[in-house]
Amino acid sequence: MTSYKLALIPGDGIGVDVIDAAMKVMHSAAARFGFALAPETFPWSCDFYLRTGTMMPADGIETLRGFDAIYLGAVGWPETVADSVSLHGLLLPIRKAFDQYANIRPHRLLAGVEGPLKASEFDILCIRENTEGEYSGAGGRVHQGKPNEVAVETSVFTRVGVERILRFGFEQARARRKHLTSVTKSNAQKYSMVFWDDVTRELSAEYPDVTVSQMHIDAMAAKMVMAPQDLDVVVASNLFGDILTDLGAAIQGGLGFAASANICPDRSSPSMFEPVHGSAPDIAGKNIANPIAAIWSGAQMLDHLGEGEAAAAVLSAIEAATAQGIGTRPGQNTTDEITAAVCAALEA
Amino acid sequence: MTSYKLALIPGDGIGVDVIDAAMKVMHSAAARFGFALAPETFPWSCDFYLRTGTMMPADGIETLRGFDAIYLGAVGWPETVADSVSLHGLLLPIRKAFDQYANIRPHRLLAGVEGPLKASEFDILCIRENTEGEYSGAGGRVHQGKPNEVAVETSVFTRVGVERILRFGFEQARARRKHLTSVTKSNAQKYSMVFWDDVTRELSAEYPDVTVSQMHIDAMAAKMVMAPQDLDVVVASNLFGDILTDLGAAIQGGLGFAASANICPDRSSPSMFEPVHGSAPDIAGKNIANPIAAIWSGAQMLDHLGEGEAAAAVLSAIEAATAQGIGTRPGQNTTDEITAAVCAALEA
Ligand SMILES: CC(C)[C@H](C(=O)O)[C@@H](O)C(=O)O
Ligand SMILES: CC(C)[C@H](C(=O)O)[C@@H](O)C(=O)O
Repeated sequence: MTSYKLALIPGDGIGVDVIDAAMKVMHSAAARFGFALAPETFPWSCDFYLRTGTMMPADGIETLRGFDAIYLGAVGWPETVADSVSLHGLLLPIRKAFDQYANIRPHRLLAGVEGPLKASEFDILCIRENTEGEYSGAGGRVHQGKPNEVAVETSVFTRVGVERILRFGFEQARARRKHLTSVTKSNAQKYSMVFWDDVTRELSAEYPDVTVSQMHIDAMAAKMVMAPQDLDVVVASNLFGDILTDLGAAIQGGLGFAASANICPDRSSPSMFEPVHGSAPDIAGKNIANPIAAIWSGAQMLDHLGEGEAAAAVLSAIEAATAQGIGTRPGQNTTDEITAAVCAALEA
Repeated sequence: MTSYKLALIPGDGIGVDVIDAAMKVMHSAAARFGFALAPETFPWSCDFYLRTGTMMPADGIETLRGFDAIYLGAVGWPETVADSVSLHGLLLPIRKAFDQYANIRPHRLLAGVEGPLKASEFDILCIRENTEGEYSGAGGRVHQGKPNEVAVETSVFTRVGVERILRFGFEQARARRKHLTSVTKSNAQKYSMVFWDDVTRELSAEYPDVTVSQMHIDAMAAKMVMAPQDLDVVVASNLFGDILTDLGAAIQGGLGFAASANICPDRSSPSMFEPVHGSAPDIAGKNIANPIAAIWSGAQMLDHLGEGEAAAAVLSAIEAATAQGIGTRPGQNTTDEITAAVCAALEA
């Protein structure tokens, strides 16, 4: 029997609750489809930081390298540990170290879920560049606190980085409805975004079967609200993808339903799967966090591991539960109830 | 009788149609409230560019300096003239030359207008920094077309620039519901956005009567869709404000209803008023463009000129028309019909 080595990083707050719940579903899927999951849990978190002084051990990245996939809950205790420590000490280094350059986030309404829009028919796959661009971390501050203080932050886009994410987007579009929307702001950012537009045009010649639209981020944000049904695959930079995927989460009913996969497409390193939501420490440990985003992210993980049938079954099981109204409204069901309903549907 | 000198720049496409329509309403307001408007029209546009080689004459800025306000339609012929020429040759230089650092964009549903959200009760005032930040224009491209090509784009934030826009936001919040939301992405952009957060905290001590929320742009985009009723005044950088105001336009029913004022708060230079929409050359000259955004921007202009009563009357007249369904749906009424309905309500 094939067995997959999973590195679990539940992290902080409700990250622990949802990974715990989602692993029940993963094991249930493994049992049904005849494979095994060998999870190992790493307690890397803000609590770990307060005890040891780092978010993960110095050999953390090396340790993770041996796994088939990483399954992460949520990171951060904003009241106690600065984001610059927690996120930049765990989540962001993993994405970069393992060249998980494609952050895939699906946006559609699950059966039974009410969104904030009148529109309900949309099925968008956002592909966010995950390693460079506006979050490169290059910059500085001078004359701090003085009247002439200046802060600069430099977005760095490389041809390698831009080509590979666009190629990934084209491939995804080819496997779906063959429509790719590339999002920039080239009318106001003349270097980075004009470069991105140029590469989009170059590559589109290699994918004549894919229809390409180029949109500005402002118009795109409006479109996600006014005509989301017109979108198929959307490719965007680190920052623009970050914004669009939270907007995508909003139109699909909230962060409780927003899944994400941080993919290293050439499989030279493990990929990482995590719900988009944060750690919400105020509701942690109370059996009320919605595990659906984590379970859906787990389905993306199974798919990436080559267990496509199991992945599809997990997604159907989620929708069998939500179609009955389970887990569709905040506070309506406990974490355990939602997990049990998904497992029951999976085993049915 | 007080007379105000207006510089009209109808610009391109439907810019011409809507300024023409909106000026009828402005004159009607002037007649009713006992002041005069002395407009002078400048044909600066893409057409002008094709004839002369520049979007405006070399002394364009000096010419405009003598006016009490600038009323602009829309700029751009994307098929024929690059945005880098049209926008960077007219719209953006005016904003910067006249220190119109506060771009004010109101977002609420006019009576009778259907938005894409289920929620309908919101009243947001977005204040966008208009002169620096992510649209500073600093950057470059090296090794163009080569495998090692790199493009960098540097956001430049100055203490002067950040303090003045935040102060402006605090003052606006004070005059409204006393809630200010400052939008950054300081968990991923450690220089520029941490700086902005620091200045927000410093200034908040001077405005103890204003409640301040600090949000990240991704969460904010989601909030505008999920709980817009919780927002009052929103202050954001050039890029983030650009995105949020298109999103604001979307939730208020579309760009046909999105007004904007580019304000030079110390009045050392003229301010500029313009609908958020573009030039839409395909529908230009057909008497079908919706002039409501331009008329609403005109109301902002009257308010800025000190004619607050006239401004309020224009806004009421717009809503008297939309409450009857006039101008609320694309293609339902001609430009002339909408203009006539607003004028009639204003004169009633
Ligand atoms: C927490 C933050 C750094 C992170 C990001 O911006 O990447 C989050 O917003 C996300 O979308 O995964
Ligand atoms: C056309 C473009 C440069 C402009 C901007 O980004 O400022 C527009 O989007 C706006 O919002 O006024």
